[in-house]
Amino acid sequence: MQIAIVGLGRMGANIARRLMSRGHQTVVYDRRAEAVSDLVEQGATGASDLADLVSKLEAPRAVWVMLPSGEITENTIREFADLLSPGDTLIDGGNSFWKDDIRRAGELRERGLSYVDVGTSGGIWGFERGYCMMIGGDKAVVDRLDPIFAALAPGLGDVPRTPGREGRDARAEEGYIHAGGNGAGHFVKMVHNGIEYGLMQAYAEGFDILKNANSEKLPPEDRLDIDVADVAEVWRRGSVVTSWLLDLTASALATDSGLGGFSGYVEDSGEGRWTILAAIAEAVPAEVLSAALYTRFRSRQEHTFAERVLSAMRKGFGGHVEAQPNAPRGISKPEAD
Amino acid sequence: MQIAIVGLGRMGANIARRLMSRGHQTVVYDRRAEAVSDLVEQGATGASDLADLVSKLEAPRAVWVMLPSGEITENTIREFADLLSPGDTLIDGGNSFWKDDIRRAGELRERGLSYVDVGTSGGIWGFERGYCMMIGGDKAVVDRLDPIFAALAPGLGDVPRTPGREGRDARAEEGYIHAGGNGAGHFVKMVHNGIEYGLMQAYAEGFDILKNANSEKLPPEDRLDIDVADVAEVWRRGSVVTSWLLDLTASALATDSGLGGFSGYVEDSGEGRWTILAAIAEAVPAEVLSAALYTRFRSRQEHTFAERVLSAMRKGFGGHVEAQPNAPRGISKPEAD
Amino acid sequence: MQIAIVGLGRMGANIARRLMSRGHQTVVYDRRAEAVSDLVEQGATGASDLADLVSKLEAPRAVWVMLPSGEITENTIREFADLLSPGDTLIDGGNSFWKDDIRRAGELRERGLSYVDVGTSGGIWGFERGYCMMIGGDKAVVDRLDPIFAALAPGLGDVPRTPGREGRDARAEEGYIHAGGNGAGHFVKMVHNGIEYGLMQAYAEGFDILKNANSEKLPPEDRLDIDVADVAEVWRRGSVVTSWLLDLTASALATDSGLGGFSGYVEDSGEGRWTILAAIAEAVPAEVLSAALYTRFRSRQEHTFAERVLSAMRKGFGGHVEAQPNAPRGISKPEAD
Amino acid sequence: MQIAIVGLGRMGANIARRLMSRGHQTVVYDRRAEAVSDLVEQGATGASDLADLVSKLEAPRAVWVMLPSGEITENTIREFADLLSPGDTLIDGGNSFWKDDIRRAGELRERGLSYVDVGTSGGIWGFERGYCMMIGGDKAVVDRLDPIFAALAPGLGDVPRTPGREGRDARAEEGYIHAGGNGAGHFVKMVHNGIEYGLMQAYAEGFDILKNANSEKLPPEDRLDIDVADVAEVWRRGSVVTSWLLDLTASALATDSGLGGFSGYVEDSGEGRWTILAAIAEAVPAEVLSAALYTRFRSRQEHTFAERVLSAMRKGFGGHVEAQPNAPRGISKPEAD
Repeated sequence: MQIAIVGLGRMGANIARRLMSRGHQTVVYDRRAEAVSDLVEQGATGASDLADLVSKLEAPRAVWVMLPSGEITENTIREFADLLSPGDTLIDGGNSFWKDDIRRAGELRERGLSYVDVGTSGGIWGFERGYCMMIGGDKAVVDRLDPIFAALAPGLGDVPRTPGREGRDARAEEGYIHAGGNGAGHFVKMVHNGIEYGLMQAYAEGFDILKNANSEKLPPEDRLDIDVADVAEVWRRGSVVTSWLLDLTASALATDSGLGGFSGYVEDSGEGRWTILAAIAEAVPAEVLSAALYTRFRSRQEHTFAERVLSAMRKGFGGHVEAQPNAPRGISKPEAD
Repeated sequence: MQIAIVGLGRMGANIARRLMSRGHQTVVYDRRAEAVSDLVEQGATGASDLADLVSKLEAPRAVWVMLPSGEITENTIREFADLLSPGDTLIDGGNSFWKDDIRRAGELRERGLSYVDVGTSGGIWGFERGYCMMIGGDKAVVDRLDPIFAALAPGLGDVPRTPGREGRDARAEEGYIHAGGNGAGHFVKMVHNGIEYGLMQAYAEGFDILKNANSEKLPPEDRLDIDVADVAEVWRRGSVVTSWLLDLTASALATDSGLGGFSGYVEDSGEGRWTILAAIAEAVPAEVLSAALYTRFRSRQEHTFAERVLSAMRKGFGGHVEAQPNAPRGISKPEAD
Repeated sequence: MQIAIVGLGRMGANIARRLMSRGHQTVVYDRRAEAVSDLVEQGATGASDLADLVSKLEAPRAVWVMLPSGEITENTIREFADLLSPGDTLIDGGNSFWKDDIRRAGELRERGLSYVDVGTSGGIWGFERGYCMMIGGDKAVVDRLDPIFAALAPGLGDVPRTPGREGRDARAEEGYIHAGGNGAGHFVKMVHNGIEYGLMQAYAEGFDILKNANSEKLPPEDRLDIDVADVAEVWRRGSVVTSWLLDLTASALATDSGLGGFSGYVEDSGEGRWTILAAIAEAVPAEVLSAALYTRFRSRQEHTFAERVLSAMRKGFGGHVEAQPNAPRGISKPEAD
Repeated sequence: MQIAIVGLGRMGANIARRLMSRGHQTVVYDRRAEAVSDLVEQGATGASDLADLVSKLEAPRAVWVMLPSGEITENTIREFADLLSPGDTLIDGGNSFWKDDIRRAGELRERGLSYVDVGTSGGIWGFERGYCMMIGGDKAVVDRLDPIFAALAPGLGDVPRTPGREGRDARAEEGYIHAGGNGAGHFVKMVHNGIEYGLMQAYAEGFDILKNANSEKLPPEDRLDIDVADVAEVWRRGSVVTSWLLDLTASALATDSGLGGFSGYVEDSGEGRWTILAAIAEAVPAEVLSAALYTRFRSRQEHTFAERVLSAMRKGFGGHVEAQPNAPRGISKPEAD
């Protein structure tokens, strides 16, 4: 079927390419003209602006917006609200906040437009591996777009089927679900990313402990010199901690087991934060997911004000003067408290 | 080659069976006679006690002890120390504390015996899937036992090879590593389990947030009714959070998405605790791994004393009387602080 | 000066009483007629409804609303917006969300009304001890109300003065501050409560560790039988952890060192949650404050869904069957992983 | 009574001075001759080495060792074991690990010597404020030394008495307790320090949130400019979070509300770590105390290996390239996951 893709970054361009490779017709737009022309070469119809894009689609139109979440997505959806006609559908495949989806869906509904929120996982590997999609919206609309989702999804592949799923929605096994009404798609994707942070941090701490098993802070007889690249590799087969994230870690460590090419400055995106907000609203303890988020906050600062407060208190009650960062470390031996 | 297996629980019996299925000769012993006779029927040589077992092995002997960590393993190793002869090797495939390995290896070395600590992952699936093994000990001994490890390991299987591993130890790709001297095997396995706790808790919190997205604590307009079984399934393909633990979760949720068969009383074993001890000794922050451990501690109590202390303080400064557990919940509206 | 107090719960009634005891004139209202008549007996002017209350005040009026945060406060402020006249001031002394203050102040400003948000700490002890107040609003309005704040505040008392404060705002030493524009008062009070949760949890965990130093989970030679009531008492003098919360703990433990009168079901109020939201918005790591909040969430549940997910996974990979909660506890000795 | 003090650092010297000021006779020793002569000028008897010190004491002797915990304390106690006579008592007033106390007491008992472990809080303020002491050892010995403890303790002071303590051990109100047998003194002091870390971190996070309320990461309309020095001061009177640690914080902020004199490199000592070990041995969840410890670990590193692992994974699945630390911060808008 025909669909427009707006936003041809790594994700959007690959989505368009995967759809075309599976026989769908795409009309594409991006502010960067060369991003459009690249895809036109690969078979897409290019558009010069949003109005042009709309004019190149047959009703009922479907427009997949694949832009950074926030202002750009919001503005683009507003522009389309004026350009589209009743019966048309806007799809936000980015990482919007799920409550924004509910609001937008309501606003668009008043104009006769449908809205679908699609949490899209798969990263830069999606073209090849397929995209795992979590979809929120009205059933009729989601059903109508099914050929698009089916083409983007990974499909059964060689992942063994889960016993006991007979009679359940078959789409889940193909790699996409209709998670519920508007907002549900991005809500599930949000929690996916929250979990992702937690998983990443669990591995990260574990490898940190392995790496420091040889630390000079330890008594010599307690030191172990562990090859973390081999450990990551060995866990990929037969262990309880096998995962795609471990595969990626093994790959990074195989090249450089000290990860010297990375400084450890770690960004976070909205989903990790919103997951904690959801947990708090629901009164669900989310220790691990919060800790994983905070680690990222901390990684981006040289020192927190909190740490300076600690130093000030320690000086206050114990007369402790801060050690020089380059002094030999270990357990200090304070004279007072 | 020939090897003895002592301890024929789920792990030990399957290890013996996997070894036999790959052409190795096993001599087996367990306190439970029927466990021995079961394996004899499958081709093993049975032993009636440790001395008998030793007498049925040709020197240099190799004895794999597969017992619960702690006293039983310790005592069994002590008994073997008296029964074995110089040149023989004792293998502890259980979950011993890595510093105990170092101590034991030293004691056995004085008697001319070799000791190998093998962290063995794979659980009840190991017979089929193979065991991921992390091995600590002297190179010569580990090399001599290689046929045993190679037979137990999963092998390359259909897991894609990690690019960039050319020139690195090929055993890691087969699912086993020589992690270092004594203690290193169990140290790496310990961290494996520490990570396992963290990963499990990350998924658990995420599914808790999804489940409670429909909580009556939320304003009705913010509620979402999510099918957690379908979510677990959809993430198995193409998402960033695919893993074996997710496969198992999807399987459990497919049968009963409310997990009504479980109460949520969660044990922990030594490795999760020792991982934190190692982190602290190394001064490595291990927020997520600790939080995962504490959740398990908490799961086994109705209320902690800590919580009663909180209630007592709240009464002290605000006159707050504890709500009845069955009263409608939500954010309380205290009059004072 | 003259001021109205609306809401005569524990906090509001004591605020009125403290103001009267220091020579201020109060006009009071509460839905419960007896709450009004009680204060009338103590010298207040009673009002039968909000309109009556307004009619009994001389312009420019000042009305202190002391109600549970949320809908009741919101509605009351709306009603007053219609009843008051330009130049009058509404004070919210409750625990409103600071962004609601900013919104309300804007709405009221359009009608010529002033709004002041006062975070009020002191709990049930405030009548005697005075109230610590954190005030947000326009300088002129806050200055005009100074006699009220000065009367409610604890004053210098016998707390030693902080060296180095010469030249700084003297009100802080008296126990109240003008924290900034609207919202700033409740923002600072919010963080106060966030810290309060963290402090409480730190003590709670410490006393839990002391209480369980005699746990039967420990080897007998490692057990210590500690009198937690005496410990709380001894720390009140000369230790680093002296505080008012410790005083309250010592008091509760002196009566019953097992705290048998408490179940450990711990409520949380909005401020603790909003503190985490603020931390996340600012990208400030707030490990301890979050953990303290989550402990409360957990205390109100028998088991989390998260814990059932853990149990399901453990059964999946290790065949672990959940222990019975009443079985002897300790480190389990699983056979698998 | 007569007592020897060994180790005349900030703590030991002040302990000697406080004892002399209350009429006790001290014999003092330190490797630094000038530390000895300083105290001799103030009335102490000086000793030139441990043997000389022992010779200047009348039996039954009491020797208070006030040295950094670890090797120095251990060696000094060993030397005294050879120098002292049956009936004499060794007191370790430092921060030893409580299990070392149990071991030492056993070794010394075999030689007829008594051992007392005293957890001593009060820091550099102890001379003036008195020392809060938690004492472990045999009742008879602790009772015999009571004049020493009573002189060092703060006494009732102007801290209000706790209601309900009638009939309980009066020493707790004076600021010292006999916590139990050997090890109990240092165990209680250990937990004291664990709590101290948690309290400090709670304040530190709260002030960090206040400081960053004006962060440029926030939308301009959400920014608040809070004077943290005034906040710390105002909370000292009438709030729920009053404490000595807050007093110290207020004092530090009064001088420089940006704490520019501190870098935020925060040491930790053994007690904070041992508290977590105790919690884990007892299966007591200690989220806050652990998080407080980990913050300190993190404060001493530029980046953790864990953070580099996170960066490597993010590059792996999303192609994310690390931002430059000096680039404008905020929520990143990744194109992929």
